[in-house]
Amino acid sequence: MADQFVITFQGEVVPGGGKSVAATTGKSVLDAARDAGLEVIATCGERGRCRSCRVKVLKGDAPPATIMDQVQLGHEEVQERFRLSCQMPVTGDATILIAPPKSEAGHKVLAIERREETGAVKLDSGVVKECVQVTLPDDENHQSSDVEELVRALSVEVEAPVPADILRKIPETVRARRNQVTVSLFRGEIIDVQPGDTSDQKLGMAFDVGTTSIVGSLLDLNTGQELASVGGVNPQSPFGGDLMSRIAYIQEDPKRLQTLRAKVLGAVNDYVKEACTLAKVDPQNIHKIAVVGNTCMHHIFLGINPTHVGLAPYAPSMRDPIVLKGSDIPLKTVPNARVCMLPIIAGFVGADTVAAALATRIYESDDMRCLVDIGTNGEVVMGQKGKLLACSAPAGPALEGGQIRHGMRGALGAIERVTIAKEVELQVIGGVDPIGICGSGLIDAVSAMLDAGILTQRGLIRFDDRETFSDTIRDRLRHVGERDEFVLGWAEAAGGEEDITLNQSDVRQLQLAKGAICSGVLLLERVLDIANEEIREIYLCGGFGNYINTESALRIRLLPDVGVERVTYFGNAAGMGAQMALLSETERARANDLAREIEHVAMATHPEFQDVFLDALEFPAAPNADSEATGSRVA
Amino acid sequence: MADQFVITFQGEVVPGGGKSVAATTGKSVLDAARDAGLEVIATCGERGRCRSCRVKVLKGDAPPATIMDQVQLGHEEVQERFRLSCQMPVTGDATILIAPPKSEAGHKVLAIERREETGAVKLDSGVVKECVQVTLPDDENHQSSDVEELVRALSVEVEAPVPADILRKIPETVRARRNQVTVSLFRGEIIDVQPGDTSDQKLGMAFDVGTTSIVGSLLDLNTGQELASVGGVNPQSPFGGDLMSRIAYIQEDPKRLQTLRAKVLGAVNDYVKEACTLAKVDPQNIHKIAVVGNTCMHHIFLGINPTHVGLAPYAPSMRDPIVLKGSDIPLKTVPNARVCMLPIIAGFVGADTVAAALATRIYESDDMRCLVDIGTNGEVVMGQKGKLLACSAPAGPALEGGQIRHGMRGALGAIERVTIAKEVELQVIGGVDPIGICGSGLIDAVSAMLDAGILTQRGLIRFDDRETFSDTIRDRLRHVGERDEFVLGWAEAAGGEEDITLNQSDVRQLQLAKGAICSGVLLLERVLDIANEEIREIYLCGGFGNYINTESALRIRLLPDVGVERVTYFGNAAGMGAQMALLSETERARANDLAREIEHVAMATHPEFQDVFLDALEFPAAPNADSEATGSRVA
Repeated sequence: MADQFVITFQGEVVPGGGKSVAATTGKSVLDAARDAGLEVIATCGERGRCRSCRVKVLKGDAPPATIMDQVQLGHEEVQERFRLSCQMPVTGDATILIAPPKSEAGHKVLAIERREETGAVKLDSGVVKECVQVTLPDDENHQSSDVEELVRALSVEVEAPVPADILRKIPETVRARRNQVTVSLFRGEIIDVQPGDTSDQKLGMAFDVGTTSIVGSLLDLNTGQELASVGGVNPQSPFGGDLMSRIAYIQEDPKRLQTLRAKVLGAVNDYVKEACTLAKVDPQNIHKIAVVGNTCMHHIFLGINPTHVGLAPYAPSMRDPIVLKGSDIPLKTVPNARVCMLPIIAGFVGADTVAAALATRIYESDDMRCLVDIGTNGEVVMGQKGKLLACSAPAGPALEGGQIRHGMRGALGAIERVTIAKEVELQVIGGVDPIGICGSGLIDAVSAMLDAGILTQRGLIRFDDRETFSDTIRDRLRHVGERDEFVLGWAEAAGGEEDITLNQSDVRQLQLAKGAICSGVLLLERVLDIANEEIREIYLCGGFGNYINTESALRIRLLPDVGVERVTYFGNAAGMGAQMALLSETERARANDLAREIEHVAMATHPEFQDVFLDALEFPAAPNADSEATGSRVA
Repeated sequence: MADQFVITFQGEVVPGGGKSVAATTGKSVLDAARDAGLEVIATCGERGRCRSCRVKVLKGDAPPATIMDQVQLGHEEVQERFRLSCQMPVTGDATILIAPPKSEAGHKVLAIERREETGAVKLDSGVVKECVQVTLPDDENHQSSDVEELVRALSVEVEAPVPADILRKIPETVRARRNQVTVSLFRGEIIDVQPGDTSDQKLGMAFDVGTTSIVGSLLDLNTGQELASVGGVNPQSPFGGDLMSRIAYIQEDPKRLQTLRAKVLGAVNDYVKEACTLAKVDPQNIHKIAVVGNTCMHHIFLGINPTHVGLAPYAPSMRDPIVLKGSDIPLKTVPNARVCMLPIIAGFVGADTVAAALATRIYESDDMRCLVDIGTNGEVVMGQKGKLLACSAPAGPALEGGQIRHGMRGALGAIERVTIAKEVELQVIGGVDPIGICGSGLIDAVSAMLDAGILTQRGLIRFDDRETFSDTIRDRLRHVGERDEFVLGWAEAAGGEEDITLNQSDVRQLQLAKGAICSGVLLLERVLDIANEEIREIYLCGGFGNYINTESALRIRLLPDVGVERVTYFGNAAGMGAQMALLSETERARANDLAREIEHVAMATHPEFQDVFLDALEFPAAPNADSEATGSRVA
């Protein structure tokens, strides 16, 4: 039988400063903390592959360090009784300090902006609202019913049986306001009845459910106008920072699917309420919702186990578009709304990619174009009218600030722009003191460090050559333990406790990320047998915290060198595509066609992938590499 | 503020013999008992119109008797501190004896027997089960998914999107038995997936949900064979004995709809389990369910408030057929089965009548025919191919044993046959001692009493003339208080505590019931402008406890005199129609057509109704009325 012990948790995430719980042997300390309702972040999905669930054993025995503890925490921290809570078994009474996660208050949502490239979207949402006066049967020889009279009063045709939950509302609703009723239909099916006249309130929401962030926008389906924009961190994040970690978390125990599902549905419900509060409207008037997301997010959202999406050959369980009642998902804020899930192309090329292709209108281009959508995974779509290819590049979380020592998402306090001239200049989200660096800042920083010669073409920090730099730069190059690092922001200047740095390992992470993305583009070029020059335009999409500097993106070779004039930063294309499918059934139908037309290319098994990837890892030579003179270097 | 008191309940229905509960002023004693989880029968729907919720105040103050107490209980019982608990307010601490309801253990279910009249039913249930071997994607360049491969493997066409709950089952199911899966479809929609080969198990259930009884039968959809038959008292009965009482109960507080709904859904779930246990099959292989019932039962089953069905012009909220997922109703035993609710004709001519018309095939008759379906309400359908009329006759519960002093449903111990010659001979269900009398027994008893001259043509017990009868009969005629009654069974002979009698009021109730039914037939004859002689056949349908004696039915003029050879006892025609709609989509479609073709005639508002009804109340003259000599009378 399992023994039971008392674990007392402390730390910033523990309400009231301390919480004691009973825990049995066999559980991990992480499970014990979660059972106690404490949010402990486990970015790698409890696989001992990251540091996010680190705890310190304050009282009680610290169990022997595992190999994962040694690798992730290093000898010093292990000695100081730090452990990975996902790997640490409950073995006795203990007091445990949970290392607080970095505060991400004020997460900056990259609002979905409609772009001119998209052109006009026809307002044919499929939702019709009609206010009618119902004449109820008044003769005992009646051969009619409430429902029949309601349908008779409509000018639009009803093409589907009335759903049971609407039937249940009808007797009361038709009698509430002197038989005046507003009927809502979606594609000929009655989806709601409301007392009185609410026909001017015809709303919808578009959601982009990303691995890292969830973004939603509330639109008026009559005018196409955006009424509110909401969003934030995907609350599944503590259970795994990337797709594979979340899948691994579920593979361990299928019941955990429900845990992750509850998180995303809870968040969507909250965003519905928040958006309606902001716009001062009633959620009952949201009649349609369009949802995009990668295959894993899509499956979890629907309650479909994504285990097999994470195992070769990474096939999804379903790909077709599906329309569900809110109550069937269930989304309790919008039980009668029709929720339209956009279709999927392949296991790692999901509905978000379909939506991005829709938004960029790449499918009607006469010239070769390319869209690169960067999230935790990067997806690349390339081609032109009549022929489109797609692949998924496993970028990892670096471009969203993950696995970077001072990395963070695009939230308040994130460095979003870096320039290095005589001095290092930082631009911080919210104009506050910096607390970390987000994706766009990281790309800028590395770009600037390359230009300044601080980084070599192969991505090495030129620590041994630091004597050649100006004082300002030299002071920032330092060696801590075994770590070479470059100080972006001094603690004293920033008012923080710690200098904000970029170290050799961070640069390697960025290299892996940008190498993966660049490989995707290069590989599709090879499959299509075209050269860089033949690409007329690259749409760079995704939420990096802020608009990415396209020059920096080219400088670090996130994209192959097509020339800066051919790179367009497109913002959240997936979210934009979701909005289009929300506003227009024509666009939603086009998304369904696109999902079937786009050909999937599996990167990892492509025979040329290794070659391409090794090539893509390197940084380009400095534009003026021949000259040793740069502004920030000692002549 | 409401004061709080302690009420202690005693009586046979109280587990453990006693239960104390806190109750506040403003509640009725009945509510307090129900809050305590005690089942108190209130046949009239808490309107003070029956005696079923009678209690005796053992300790504490008995409140002043209401007018309902006086009428229902009489002066004597009021003096003995009996009260109607639905009318009795909580006014102080008290000990209350709940008068135990009559035991109805062993309720006799009138099993649904297929009849030859019905002819062969085509076995096209709409349910298809196919076992397939699914080839899952094995190439990373896949453009497919589990669902697509499953659909590809099927030989039948899939014509609807796969429902979300099935999508959730697919990943695991297709991999459970080496990719062997049995797919169930209903009308082209995938409704279930099961691991391995279960294609030989294709089951369905038909339910007739009556006001008084629920009857179900489990059928093999491959062969049409009945595998089990189940049924019993509708557990809504304690909340109202007839439709109007149940509607009144809900009108008082719409939340009570959920109470009644939970009762019927719970019963259906239990019957599903019971039938599957009897037949040793798995409820998961029940893929289709057909349900018939009157409009009120139909609406409550679906969760639609039937309030307006009970108010002029008695219009239903819906009439169209509807097919729902078990999980949408919800029926938790059969979440994936498709539940087909048959359509409704009018407020008091429901799906049960449609099913009865279907079963009798009256719609294809070249001659004028009539079907009379007797439940708490009686429905009459009359006509021939191309023209059918229907009306509803408010028979009341007498023919099901209700509002008859010793009346009971067709359960163990019910007198089902009565003959009066030299002696009174009784036939009792189960061959046990009689404890009451059911509908068929009542019809027989009154018929025999008419023949014996104990009843006059106008329905009076010939008490004053009792000296003219034989000793045997004379002894049985007696006057108790203000009550004239005829003893059917002596307590000592029956081993009971009380003689089983039929009194003047019982005869009046039967007269009202049979008068209503007979009026329905006569009225439709007038609307069609035909004479009795033109009716080729009357189908007498319904569950009276046992097969009704058609001679007795004609003798009491339950039906107009068409000659006994033209009356066919048809049994549970509604249940039979439900079975046909279960086995055959052709028959179900025919039911939908029938519901629209049958014309509804409102009896109560028909100008000739009063005339017809007054005429129908009387009993016919004795066949040998001229002669005063009958076998049981003293010459």
